[in-house]
Amino acid sequence: MRIDVLTLFPAMFDGVFQSSILGKARDKGLVELNTVNFRDYSNNKHNTVDDYPYGGGGGMVLKAEPIFSAVEDIQPLDADTKPRVVLMCPQGQPFSQKKAEELSAEKHLIFICGHYEGYDERIREHLVTDELSIGDYVLTGGELPAMVVIDSVVRLLPGVLGNETSAVTDSFSTGLLEYPHYTRPAKFREWEVPEVLISGNHAHIDQWRRKQSLYRTWTKRPDLLVGMELTAQDRKWLAEFERDAQVSASGDATREDRL
Amino acid sequence: MRIDVLTLFPAMFDGVFQSSILGKARDKGLVELNTVNFRDYSNNKHNTVDDYPYGGGGGMVLKAEPIFSAVEDIQPLDADTKPRVVLMCPQGQPFSQKKAEELSAEKHLIFICGHYEGYDERIREHLVTDELSIGDYVLTGGELPAMVVIDSVVRLLPGVLGNETSAVTDSFSTGLLEYPHYTRPAKFREWEVPEVLISGNHAHIDQWRRKQSLYRTWTKRPDLLVGMELTAQDRKWLAEFERDAQVSASGDATREDRL
Repeated sequence: MRIDVLTLFPAMFDGVFQSSILGKARDKGLVELNTVNFRDYSNNKHNTVDDYPYGGGGGMVLKAEPIFSAVEDIQPLDADTKPRVVLMCPQGQPFSQKKAEELSAEKHLIFICGHYEGYDERIREHLVTDELSIGDYVLTGGELPAMVVIDSVVRLLPGVLGNETSAVTDSFSTGLLEYPHYTRPAKFREWEVPEVLISGNHAHIDQWRRKQSLYRTWTKRPDLLVGMELTAQDRKWLAEFERDAQVSASGDATREDRL
Repeated sequence: MRIDVLTLFPAMFDGVFQSSILGKARDKGLVELNTVNFRDYSNNKHNTVDDYPYGGGGGMVLKAEPIFSAVEDIQPLDADTKPRVVLMCPQGQPFSQKKAEELSAEKHLIFICGHYEGYDERIREHLVTDELSIGDYVLTGGELPAMVVIDSVVRLLPGVLGNETSAVTDSFSTGLLEYPHYTRPAKFREWEVPEVLISGNHAHIDQWRRKQSLYRTWTKRPDLLVGMELTAQDRKWLAEFERDAQVSASGDATREDRL
């Protein structure tokens, strides 16, 4: 896969592109990561890439010309591959694991990262293929969102993750939040590992974990349970959680004591 | 504000902490940003900070000891300030602009970034004050999510953004998605700026922008409109969008032609 990132702050990407999974994927030749400073395409003597908005108002707007020129100057991967041109912006489609999977099937991605400013609407209408937002919070630029999308996409490429199961067993891959993890020591300060996990009984362990995943999802992110395929046992547990919550609300011991 | 980040990959933060808004906020003395490699607290000769999970299964689990030691070794800001200890994890509370505002009122934040692995549950139960997730997608570690949260928090600190209006007029601050922006040239290739924006009539411009914001939100993120305070004019426009969508679905000209 090849990824080109248009940004005014290429140095922001250095540490992230060289470390950890992205650095390793690069070293193994599984992904090529480039940054392009689109100020090099400003085509005016002051090197400006933004200007005042038509109609007035605060803030600046990124001009269409340098962005179009920079994208059009990127060497195509081959004659058949049309790159996906992804604009990182708050108005974009909410980014999801499904979108990460979809993008990981592409050969060539181009990311456009604005900074502080808005984008001239003609970039949006006539150049980009995807507009993505990583969440409903305000950031100073598209650089961190682009890194987030790139990280989630590259880790899905074949050969990138050492342990092939890792990509599958994470949260959201199963649809439920992860169950609690424990490692040595069995007793840290006064806090001990749940007995079932050191019992050696794998059927019990699997059951405990599924129930914990389900409970955690039910308490923290019930929205994830909507429309999910659940087993008969899952449904029994959910009914139990509901019942116990009612008892607990009426003054009984808290759920955690008995889970 | 002081921010300490626990990570096994401190180099990932270099470019981001030195560039743009974060770099400037640091230079102005508005925020102190530190990274702590918690491998320095591993307390064993192999420098390991993770171990196999109790109960079996794939993946590794970050041990409680080095994380507790590293957090407890961080110099308190003053005798009265208890730091917020934020764990970046997929099971966390979804991060939002409201949470960014809440955190921006703190004096001292500590972020814990795991990588690949799970966290020993005792970290979650007895050390952290907040668990945050930036979205429903799988990443290789908590580093990028921590950068996202830090960026959104630091830009809200007084004196960080040059233009005081910038923090307010962004998407999500008004509750609606932003209206389209245009800047020079008025005609780029064959695409022209909407006439109203060069009319000089500010009442018309404000009206056009509000309608565009509303239309964009209605088409792309109708979830944001739920429970929002709308004017009588907003409601009229929404009714118009609904009506036109029905007409359009029955074969008439598309909405965009007439908006």
